[in-house]
Amino acid sequence: MSSTKKIMECVPNFSEGRDLKKVEKIIDCFRGKEGVKLLDYSSDKDHNRTVVTLVGEVEPLKEAVLSAIGKAIELIDLRSHTGEHPRMGACDVVPFIPIRNVTMEDAIALAKEVGEEAGKRYNLPIFLYEKAATTPERENLAKVRKGQFEGMAEKLQDPNWKPDFGPSKVHESAGVTAVGARMPLVAFNVNLDTANIEITDAIAKKVRFIGGGLRFCKAMGVELKERGITQVSMNMTDYTKTAIYRSFEMVKMEAKRYGVNVVGSEVIGLVPMAALIDTAVYYMGIEEFSLDQVLENRLME
Amino acid sequence: MSSTKKIMECVPNFSEGRDLKKVEKIIDCFRGKEGVKLLDYSSDKDHNRTVVTLVGEVEPLKEAVLSAIGKAIELIDLRSHTGEHPRMGACDVVPFIPIRNVTMEDAIALAKEVGEEAGKRYNLPIFLYEKAATTPERENLAKVRKGQFEGMAEKLQDPNWKPDFGPSKVHESAGVTAVGARMPLVAFNVNLDTANIEITDAIAKKVRFIGGGLRFCKAMGVELKERGITQVSMNMTDYTKTAIYRSFEMVKMEAKRYGVNVVGSEVIGLVPMAALIDTAVYYMGIEEFSLDQVLENRLME
Repeated sequence: MSSTKKIMECVPNFSEGRDLKKVEKIIDCFRGKEGVKLLDYSSDKDHNRTVVTLVGEVEPLKEAVLSAIGKAIELIDLRSHTGEHPRMGACDVVPFIPIRNVTMEDAIALAKEVGEEAGKRYNLPIFLYEKAATTPERENLAKVRKGQFEGMAEKLQDPNWKPDFGPSKVHESAGVTAVGARMPLVAFNVNLDTANIEITDAIAKKVRFIGGGLRFCKAMGVELKERGITQVSMNMTDYTKTAIYRSFEMVKMEAKRYGVNVVGSEVIGLVPMAALIDTAVYYMGIEEFSLDQVLENRLME
Repeated sequence: MSSTKKIMECVPNFSEGRDLKKVEKIIDCFRGKEGVKLLDYSSDKDHNRTVVTLVGEVEPLKEAVLSAIGKAIELIDLRSHTGEHPRMGACDVVPFIPIRNVTMEDAIALAKEVGEEAGKRYNLPIFLYEKAATTPERENLAKVRKGQFEGMAEKLQDPNWKPDFGPSKVHESAGVTAVGARMPLVAFNVNLDTANIEITDAIAKKVRFIGGGLRFCKAMGVELKERGITQVSMNMTDYTKTAIYRSFEMVKMEAKRYGVNVVGSEVIGLVPMAALIDTAVYYMGIEEFSLDQVLENRLME
């Protein structure tokens, strides 16, 4: 009786955030498509970039994303692109994210299918990244994108950077696209009753992975000047393994050393239900709870 | 972009829990109906009663429930019914519960429509109860059902107990049906590290409404003999007004007096997502959180 529809998320990033007519033409690839739902898109002028959030069934999502990559290649010319955000392609990155009744393996398989087909259809070099990466150094998107559009022609001559799909020659106007698979990100911030950003930075460094903290947590200190406080701003990269309540409690614990208190928190943007329900289960010690007990999980097809 | 489908829940109770062939014939009224989803049903031999959980859109749910009431009248004869659970009708009670994009007013309106139509179609006396009640004393189902099937003929002669719909004469074999509207119930238990049921009963009495405790909380002490502990077993009758974390914290607080500790909790059966998310929001002090941020809420039609 439980819901069985397979739902994948995709968050493609396009290198156009100023010409909104072009943006709308790309976004049209996601509109009115059976089995595909456009959840959000936002364009940033400074970054000159548009980030789209889609969910859908695997096959229709694949076709919609492929058509949007084609539209971006048609409309965006990287040779005249400027913006603060690093980029290497007209369609810069295409991460697939397993949401419901699909696994990370399904997301990786979909990334490979989309990468292969985009390489063929548009004569576009494709790097697989994160969980879909074919070498350890390709897991890190920053390393894949290093050199950006302007440096790609040279980078692709290095045998270590032979694309996973498509030609070994950069696309003249559309560059290179990274297609990958990852867990949903949860943007989670913990607010502290200090205006001292040095303290908050120090706490962030202890909580995050690279500072010896939690495995799936990125963190930095941020000032909230209007409120006269600071926050540990975190990106939880796998909430199923590093629970958000754990990062909350760890910030609280580390803040103690400075006599600083947690005054609240924020969840930015979308969050999977399970990340919050896991939090409730932890704080009330709910025994043997199953997500099948959540009424709304039974309403979905 | 948000989900707009209107979803109502219905938990009809039928006075048959032994003859499973009859039960299946009643349940068939909920199978294969477009817009109606059978979530659960369970029959209890001692109670001689079957409890069904359905969700659906308003119109199809209405028709399915009406046809099941008809099937119950056809198959169940209260004149030969025995069982531990109090009952007054073949279809005993029909509560409607607002779940998604519907209000309590919608549930009350649906209860009235179903009550009126069932009264007419089956010549069946109908009492509206709980939020749909037309007098204060009909709000309490126990008062409506007092006297049970055997006492209904006499009860209906009292002008105070004129049915809301249908004839003022009890249905010969199918008795009387109560149709109502209520909030979703959350069955929530808090486990204590004492085997002393007197202590746990004392705590339950302080936490529950009738003992001066929380407005929408019913509670009693229960022994978990195998584990050698006890629990405060609660029915939260409106989690939107009396949050489940509040009852958890209040049990913990009252247990202190006895040197007793909370060791865990249980959620039994289905629970609305918002009841648990509210708990996460409380414990982590998440500021300005909206249920629209929950990814799964955006997946539903």
